Amino acid sequence: MLNCGNFHSFIMSFKKYLSVIVFCFSIGIISAQQSKNFIQYVNPFVGTKNMGHTFPGATRPFGMVQLSPETDAQAYVVDGKYNPNAYAYCAGYQYNDTTIVGFSHTHFSGTGHSDLGDFLVMPMVGELLLNPGMSSSPETGYRSRFSHKEEKAEPNYYQVYLSDYKINAELTSSTRVGFHRYTFPKTDSANIVLDLMSGIYNFDEKNVWTFVRVENDTLVTGYRQTQGWARTRTVYFALSFSKPFSLYGHKKYDEQVYRGFWRKFDETKNFPEMAGRQLRAYFQFETEETEEILLKFALSSTSTSGALKNLETEIPHWNFDKIKKEGQLEWNHELAKIDIETINVADKETFYTALYHSFLSPIEYMDVDGAYKGLDGNIHYAKDFTNYTIFSLWDTYRALHPLFNLIQPGRNKDMMESLLAHYDQSVHPMLPVWSHYANENWCMIGYHSVSVLADALIKDVLKPESYQRALSASAQTANTDYYDGIELYKKLGFVPDDKNTSSVSKTLEYAYDDWCITQMAEKLNDSSIAQEFGKRALSYQNVFNKARISMAPRLENGEWRKEFDKLSTHGQGFIEGNAWNYSLYLPQSPEKLIALMGGKKAFELHLDSLFTQHLDDKYFEQTEDITRDGIIGLYVHGNEPGHHIPFLYNWTNAPWKTQARVRMIMESMYSNSNDGLCGNDDAGQMSAWYIFNALGFYPVAPGSDRYAIGSPLVKTAKISFENGNKLQIYVRNQNRENVYIQNIELNGKKINRLYLTHNELTQGGILEFKMGSKPNKDLGSSD
Amino acid sequence: MLNCGNFHSFIMSFKKYLSVIVFCFSIGIISAQQSKNFIQYVNPFVGTKNMGHTFPGATRPFGMVQLSPETDAQAYVVDGKYNPNAYAYCAGYQYNDTTIVGFSHTHFSGTGHSDLGDFLVMPMVGELLLNPGMSSSPETGYRSRFSHKEEKAEPNYYQVYLSDYKINAELTSSTRVGFHRYTFPKTDSANIVLDLMSGIYNFDEKNVWTFVRVENDTLVTGYRQTQGWARTRTVYFALSFSKPFSLYGHKKYDEQVYRGFWRKFDETKNFPEMAGRQLRAYFQFETEETEEILLKFALSSTSTSGALKNLETEIPHWNFDKIKKEGQLEWNHELAKIDIETINVADKETFYTALYHSFLSPIEYMDVDGAYKGLDGNIHYAKDFTNYTIFSLWDTYRALHPLFNLIQPGRNKDMMESLLAHYDQSVHPMLPVWSHYANENWCMIGYHSVSVLADALIKDVLKPESYQRALSASAQTANTDYYDGIELYKKLGFVPDDKNTSSVSKTLEYAYDDWCITQMAEKLNDSSIAQEFGKRALSYQNVFNKARISMAPRLENGEWRKEFDKLSTHGQGFIEGNAWNYSLYLPQSPEKLIALMGGKKAFELHLDSLFTQHLDDKYFEQTEDITRDGIIGLYVHGNEPGHHIPFLYNWTNAPWKTQARVRMIMESMYSNSNDGLCGNDDAGQMSAWYIFNALGFYPVAPGSDRYAIGSPLVKTAKISFENGNKLQIYVRNQNRENVYIQNIELNGKKINRLYLTHNELTQGGILEFKMGSKPNKDLGSSD
Repeated sequence: MLNCGNFHSFIMSFKKYLSVIVFCFSIGIISAQQSKNFIQYVNPFVGTKNMGHTFPGATRPFGMVQLSPETDAQAYVVDGKYNPNAYAYCAGYQYNDTTIVGFSHTHFSGTGHSDLGDFLVMPMVGELLLNPGMSSSPETGYRSRFSHKEEKAEPNYYQVYLSDYKINAELTSSTRVGFHRYTFPKTDSANIVLDLMSGIYNFDEKNVWTFVRVENDTLVTGYRQTQGWARTRTVYFALSFSKPFSLYGHKKYDEQVYRGFWRKFDETKNFPEMAGRQLRAYFQFETEETEEILLKFALSSTSTSGALKNLETEIPHWNFDKIKKEGQLEWNHELAKIDIETINVADKETFYTALYHSFLSPIEYMDVDGAYKGLDGNIHYAKDFTNYTIFSLWDTYRALHPLFNLIQPGRNKDMMESLLAHYDQSVHPMLPVWSHYANENWCMIGYHSVSVLADALIKDVLKPESYQRALSASAQTANTDYYDGIELYKKLGFVPDDKNTSSVSKTLEYAYDDWCITQMAEKLNDSSIAQEFGKRALSYQNVFNKARISMAPRLENGEWRKEFDKLSTHGQGFIEGNAWNYSLYLPQSPEKLIALMGGKKAFELHLDSLFTQHLDDKYFEQTEDITRDGIIGLYVHGNEPGHHIPFLYNWTNAPWKTQARVRMIMESMYSNSNDGLCGNDDAGQMSAWYIFNALGFYPVAPGSDRYAIGSPLVKTAKISFENGNKLQIYVRNQNRENVYIQNIELNGKKINRLYLTHNELTQGGILEFKMGSKPNKDLGSSD
Repeated sequence: MLNCGNFHSFIMSFKKYLSVIVFCFSIGIISAQQSKNFIQYVNPFVGTKNMGHTFPGATRPFGMVQLSPETDAQAYVVDGKYNPNAYAYCAGYQYNDTTIVGFSHTHFSGTGHSDLGDFLVMPMVGELLLNPGMSSSPETGYRSRFSHKEEKAEPNYYQVYLSDYKINAELTSSTRVGFHRYTFPKTDSANIVLDLMSGIYNFDEKNVWTFVRVENDTLVTGYRQTQGWARTRTVYFALSFSKPFSLYGHKKYDEQVYRGFWRKFDETKNFPEMAGRQLRAYFQFETEETEEILLKFALSSTSTSGALKNLETEIPHWNFDKIKKEGQLEWNHELAKIDIETINVADKETFYTALYHSFLSPIEYMDVDGAYKGLDGNIHYAKDFTNYTIFSLWDTYRALHPLFNLIQPGRNKDMMESLLAHYDQSVHPMLPVWSHYANENWCMIGYHSVSVLADALIKDVLKPESYQRALSASAQTANTDYYDGIELYKKLGFVPDDKNTSSVSKTLEYAYDDWCITQMAEKLNDSSIAQEFGKRALSYQNVFNKARISMAPRLENGEWRKEFDKLSTHGQGFIEGNAWNYSLYLPQSPEKLIALMGGKKAFELHLDSLFTQHLDDKYFEQTEDITRDGIIGLYVHGNEPGHHIPFLYNWTNAPWKTQARVRMIMESMYSNSNDGLCGNDDAGQMSAWYIFNALGFYPVAPGSDRYAIGSPLVKTAKISFENGNKLQIYVRNQNRENVYIQNIELNGKKINRLYLTHNELTQGGILEFKMGSKPNKDLGSSD
């Protein structure tokens, strides 16, 4: 939301007016060049309230630096125990908070577990305070109060007035460099704190080592090495100040002593090397009224020299507004790929914000020269591709990577190369499960890299020379016997519940992944792999309990587990979804699922009851990550395992129920407000779901080339593909009530089926939907 | 000492006989190629008893890998307090110990403080024990008893029979790779332990992070990152086994949990990634009787891929005896540079062992491709030079680097490039004070890189293109105001005792270093620097107290410190030498010192009394590092500040007293036995002193081209210089009593002075001494 009007006018200096003028001018340029301003519809605050886990800070599309405010530094572990309050701070920012601790340079967007928050920078005036203080008494630390009235967020721009210090803080970025502009009051005691102890999901031993080197009076380098979700992760930095500091120093909070000083130095002040596990540094200045101090903060995974190279290459000047403008042009270019009209501006804001959130990760992960630290800890060079990291694959295989295959195939191609590079560097070797910063964190279940590769291969997005690599990496990954029950899964045909947790979820997801491998093998005519995995792909049958008409947990001896509550998620063989939801997880073969479940009518009723039953509070409490708003009956939109469920009506005799349901979900589960996400955005998966559905179709089974037709929300959409083709979508008679498709025409020809193929979309042309307030029950009858 | 005869014959298998035959054959090859076998005179055990701090293990000359047994792993800090027992284990081995803990890959030789001991490997059979156990009950841990009767050490070869396990262990090495050969008994439970917790001068928080990656069933990589004497130091490894292990695992001893496993794996067994602060790994085998398992253990400062490259390049095969032989040929080649005859074989052993100890550090510090981690933490490539580390400069500027200028100018040239590279990477910027593994540990005092560079420059060993770099780096280093009293030293002309410790020692050593800079500046015609430092070089005058006829501590207000005891070292303004000794520290200008001290006769008497007074026990206890045997009167040979003192008689009317004194020191302070060093060898300085003196001369003031003449110990010596010239030294009438030089002839011309110049030596020819039992008091009268 652009709070332009509220921008605190009292502290508006002439300089600030000027920057607003420059901004408006830059928007003008955007308009002239791209004819439309899309970034105006992005509200980076969406999802920052409650559990969206998004952040409002400044970043480029898929940028390595994601520079954003932290509103509370919650320890992940307190007194040896998990601190449940930390969960709200996965992305560092909570909209209801009233203080800002500082601005850090790395964030996940929407994840359900966390890490990062590297290199917290905070400007302050007055007595130097080297601790963040408490939100209840901000004056005891370096944090400051702030008001949303004096805060603004746009793509690649964030601004906040730090009222305790009368400092206006502005952030922008290039891909690898965070750019800070602080406007100070007149003071002889301005300090910029660099807190190396701060971090997201922190715990006492999280910092493995930190290092700061003051190269000269405007340049500082260093690194932070952590353990935690990433087993061991090092981020290097180079920090350049626009003005020389007059004094600097640090305080160390760990007991370890650098045993080499021999008392020759007062290490704490003006000594250019600072090292230890826990330290906070500061840089001191005198400032005139409204004097600006700018900071460029570059990151690298390889070295401080890499960070310095990134800094010098990406921002060789001090023109903050230029970098902001370039970033906003870049965002506008990305957002312009789908040019929509909607029945109201709120939907447009929800849409473009979702598109924005879809483009926040994976992030570019290499220096400007292609160097990056690989999974094996060695420095590698990305040859002929851009290396990416942050792969939340259990989430993103469903819709985010399929979305990329449609509108970001160039980037997704490189993301696939990044998965394969990870595989090459893996000791197991395995494709990523959940990887970030050259670490496998093994989060969640399955081996969904396989799905992502299959989808890219089937849709010809993958580099042809990587087809075989992708297939053999997938087959090898799926045969890692010691991984999460694979050995028994292969032997028994299912993961036994007495030998592994979430046994049914794993069996079902492995079966789907195995189907994906089969798709690849068939396309590449590898009959041996196709046969092996074609067989494995049927494993879902082994956990279908006919008596219970449900997927159910089974023991190693073949018997069904006795204690079994279809509504319960925990300890029942499922994860982030109960048996009700997971029993519908056969995206690759809905027709087979329907057969198992008793035929089309029974299945339709089953789906109906899913959406209409009431979930008792005792079960709701087991449902992770989401609010009451995130569920409809037993259907949980805030978690992923059900994301394909609303489309399953398409395989029954009542496909119009899909149309009504997806419109309802779009209306009720998404909005353009701060609490506009009903659960974690999950690295863009929730947002990507929305993008597809707003356009009227959804990839129910990535790895196939089909998109199931739902019900479009837009009035019109123009998708500009990277191949140069354009698809124009027209939705006739669109309004809130007309959720039912009456008629579909593709390039003037009526189609009477409930799917579109990837080629049909990407060859461009005109796709026309005619809507009505009553179902056309004939639609799809030829399917 | 070569205990060939004692080698435990019971366990001698045919294979072992074979290896002995191969060894004898290789010695044969040495004889054929180089005509003489010098390595037979080297006893690596010299200095391993008491405080020599040497190690008996296997290494190449200046090799990065110094693979040697640890006899006790003493923690440096116990219950938060310094553990005085750790000091004896600076090099890991104490001759009187009865157990061996294992074999680690990095060691200092002779230093007075410590670090390293990376990657302890220990073979064992029977129940797997993952702790070292106590020396009092070795059966409780993986350590083993051993006997010196079943132990052998030669250059590049170490062997010991681990009697608790009936394992014969042999070690050899290439420059970057340690090579282990373990001969096992028949067992189904052979284990090779890799202890990443073990280290020299260990303390609880010393390990910052460790990592092990099992690449396949014969290859393991990883690293150890430590803090401590080196602020932060990472050593990477690649370990190759000659036989696949059947099982492996590890135990973690720190509480930190890798929070990414999600309970998917039993991390402790057969899981190929191990990480944490404190861990011990093991690799399991079945073995037949006398089965050999070999290990190649490569190191790198840059990466595991660097270590792997080093491994593959240096030892691409499994021929242990070949590597041993190549290393012994290399050692023989180095030792052959000085070919001596002595009046008995013991002196020869003492001499060649000293030469061996002189060639153990600095060590080569780069991968085979020239890559190394620099002081700035970045990877650098050594262009046109070999990069070295371990510069114990307060010790080694005196005689070790001057010795290199004479017989290792090629290496010393590269060492000088290494110092300058350190300077280029230093943030201060400063040349090294005491540096190892890309860390400045700031140990001891002065800025003696300056002396080392000056000596190399004056003697034309330094690369001509580095002359100006050396001068400006030296001048800049000496002007680092915040370093150890420099600001006040420049302002007051001395380091004030109320503002800094060891104030007099620092003032005197700064003055000497400043004189060295002056020598460089004068040679390079830089009158500005020559003037600046020529003036600073006179600072010694400011701490000479005429009333006390002594160098003495002075306060910032110019007054002399009242409490002052010339015999005391501690808290009196001195370090590793009391006022008696330090008052004689003006190596650059003995004649000026003599003037200050009241003229030649008074000075001679003063020297006499130094060597004849008894040092009371209360003062002896303050004298660090040395045994009672290491002092003569008040003269402390076991510490360095007096190493030039015996030569000062040369500037009086009684130069023959120098001759008697140096012979006495050689006879009483050095021997070919395990306790053959009277103090720490100090990275070769003590040994280098011996080499010079055995040849009859000594570099009293490095930075000048003169060597003061002492009294040779050898009967003959042939020095082969790298320029192709040879100097033949003949000592006529040599015996134990004839310590007085009667006559000196250089190339047939009598010289009646008490010094030789560097050019005179390196142009080669014949130097002849004629000895007698009574002084020739005329000798040097024309000086």
